[in-house]
Amino acid sequence: MTALPHQPRPNGPGRRLPDTQQGMRRRNLSRVMYTVSAEGPLSRAAVASHIGLTRAAVSTLVDELIRAGLLEELGPERPGRVGRPGSALAVSGHGPAGIGAEVGVDHLAVCAVDLRGSVRARAVRHGTNRGRSAERVAGELTELVHRVVAEAERDGLWAAGLAVAVPGLVAGDGSTVVRAPNLDWQDTDLAALLPSDLPPAVDNEANFGGLAELWLGPSAPRDFLHVSAEIGIGAAVVVDGRLLRGSRGFAGELGHVPVWPEGPRCPCGGRGCLEQYAGEEAVLRAAGLQPGEDGVHLLSERAAAGDQRVRNALREAGTALGIALTGAVNLLDPESVVLGGALAGLAPWLLPSLEGELARRTAGPACPVTVSELGSDGPLLGAAHSVVRHVLDDPAGFARRP
Amino acid sequence: MTALPHQPRPNGPGRRLPDTQQGMRRRNLSRVMYTVSAEGPLSRAAVASHIGLTRAAVSTLVDELIRAGLLEELGPERPGRVGRPGSALAVSGHGPAGIGAEVGVDHLAVCAVDLRGSVRARAVRHGTNRGRSAERVAGELTELVHRVVAEAERDGLWAAGLAVAVPGLVAGDGSTVVRAPNLDWQDTDLAALLPSDLPPAVDNEANFGGLAELWLGPSAPRDFLHVSAEIGIGAAVVVDGRLLRGSRGFAGELGHVPVWPEGPRCPCGGRGCLEQYAGEEAVLRAAGLQPGEDGVHLLSERAAAGDQRVRNALREAGTALGIALTGAVNLLDPESVVLGGALAGLAPWLLPSLEGELARRTAGPACPVTVSELGSDGPLLGAAHSVVRHVLDDPAGFARRP
Repeated sequence: MTALPHQPRPNGPGRRLPDTQQGMRRRNLSRVMYTVSAEGPLSRAAVASHIGLTRAAVSTLVDELIRAGLLEELGPERPGRVGRPGSALAVSGHGPAGIGAEVGVDHLAVCAVDLRGSVRARAVRHGTNRGRSAERVAGELTELVHRVVAEAERDGLWAAGLAVAVPGLVAGDGSTVVRAPNLDWQDTDLAALLPSDLPPAVDNEANFGGLAELWLGPSAPRDFLHVSAEIGIGAAVVVDGRLLRGSRGFAGELGHVPVWPEGPRCPCGGRGCLEQYAGEEAVLRAAGLQPGEDGVHLLSERAAAGDQRVRNALREAGTALGIALTGAVNLLDPESVVLGGALAGLAPWLLPSLEGELARRTAGPACPVTVSELGSDGPLLGAAHSVVRHVLDDPAGFARRP
Repeated sequence: MTALPHQPRPNGPGRRLPDTQQGMRRRNLSRVMYTVSAEGPLSRAAVASHIGLTRAAVSTLVDELIRAGLLEELGPERPGRVGRPGSALAVSGHGPAGIGAEVGVDHLAVCAVDLRGSVRARAVRHGTNRGRSAERVAGELTELVHRVVAEAERDGLWAAGLAVAVPGLVAGDGSTVVRAPNLDWQDTDLAALLPSDLPPAVDNEANFGGLAELWLGPSAPRDFLHVSAEIGIGAAVVVDGRLLRGSRGFAGELGHVPVWPEGPRCPCGGRGCLEQYAGEEAVLRAAGLQPGEDGVHLLSERAAAGDQRVRNALREAGTALGIALTGAVNLLDPESVVLGGALAGLAPWLLPSLEGELARRTAGPACPVTVSELGSDGPLLGAAHSVVRHVLDDPAGFARRP
């Protein structure tokens, strides 16, 4: 594995490079990559017309990207001709790959995604991580990362970077898990415990879930609130195609929005927070079930089988979600609310009361609520794609593996 | 008055121009203007070192801005020398001016602000606008605008644009007031009723108040929630120095965040919204006072005089504000919350309970709450400065008045 040239915190395209000739060239390299990635395969002429540069300028950029191993020519070269006029360009399926990892409360997962967006390798370990030391969890995750990277390398790829989704608040350094209550982690420098040959960028799982929806979702709104749950409830606020992180990186804590201000105490210090009504443990308790591994699966199984107590518990959770989301929608005016993660699987029983509250409490047309097709894969895919986006954002920084 | 070359909706700097040589030149003109505006008076050499371009490149840009009447040279020119090596540059005090206007529930106001940020002319009319037709209000506002523009012109300025703050939701066209309940306006195309020789950009007063805080506030955080009240309660969400508008332009409706979900009905359609506890009428009612003109002044006068019923009403309003703000802070993670508009004057009696709720309900250090120094002038100044920022954003679009 190569060391990573640089790894800013993951975000959408458009990290600003300086306004110089050199900066302009690098931005134009990025525009060629994004254009071919989104619209390809394309000829040089089609790329030029898409981005509004001359064919000559685009050819220079394309040649540089081919030399760097980031673009490939698909069409057969016509021998004896100078240049390759009709040859179609595609992003490389044998260049850099983004390695995504997820530390769940009940599992670990790693995958490799190539520049075309295909998952090329994957590894999962089931079993709880509650109460285990961060060192042990990081050790197992490192093993999975090495296994996935080796598999990707056998397939002609190389690891361009590693991004790790965790169920907790992550400091602005992209390294330290400030608080992950369901893992009992506090101020844990997770990045320091992971492979030093592939410096990781750590981020909150709800953030990666929201970014996955932005990048991979079928309808792809640019302004939305992505609500997800693993054990806690988190949200990703996406505004104009960018993730809103907050001043300390702690934005999106929907689970701690007060719903009934005099309600039960919450470990966060508040009272009547959304998690006290719609968090996994609260719903299991209300349904008369014991918290344990894969509670979400149990809830959806029982609800599907017609268990009224489970259905009532989910309806109440939907009501609380609807009240908290009314506040969020009034503050943020998103195009839509997307239910992701574990909530996607429970949507049939949450949605009626959730949408009812939103409609009742909003003067104008209520904000539409949709269900993510990525479901619980969102955070892992978001992490891997965040690395892919780094490559597309600044291809000059990811030349062919030395 | 000249017609306005273009008038996008007001926002922070950085409207993206295309990535061409021409676009780069226009962005660099803007960088010179912002640099001289923020740091000036400055020599050409100092400007060059600030923005990282060569002295020769900066001189070309500066000469163009001087010809356009947007920059001035302060230093005495040394006769007989080619070039003006030591001459300090400043933004022009005799060029374009931003005209800001405010439709309040109880007043109208207009001002002219030059590129240096000085208010150069001002006009106000007191008296309620409730129940008056939009045509009459717009007619009076037009008179005030013409009076202010004439005064600015006598002073050597010319109107570069008009921006109007209103207490209501404004459509994405920057023209139509979708809903201003305290004026009884609905789907009112205010821009069409205002001077056609100076096409106005209409926006919500809370948005302009937040932008004023961003541009003119003393500490100038880049991520904050600006809460203001006139009759209703609104907020401006500023993220990384930009106003978050929402998908339809309706973001920041803090007044309709549910606080006690089973509370009193709100005209918005919800129940227990923040305005039902901390809006002017609710506080006056709780204090045993009649709603009427300048209720805020009455409240602060009585509270200062020690009236316990008024103080209790304000304490309860502060509690409701604290609960709603806890939710907003958890979602947005701002650097600070700023109380502006009428809330600034009531802060001494609102703050203890407001800060108490925030501290009690937040696990980590609570988000600091500050009081705006702009107070009720914020929206008017924000409107005028939004026009000034348009000039700084794209000076090439605002050449000297024909």
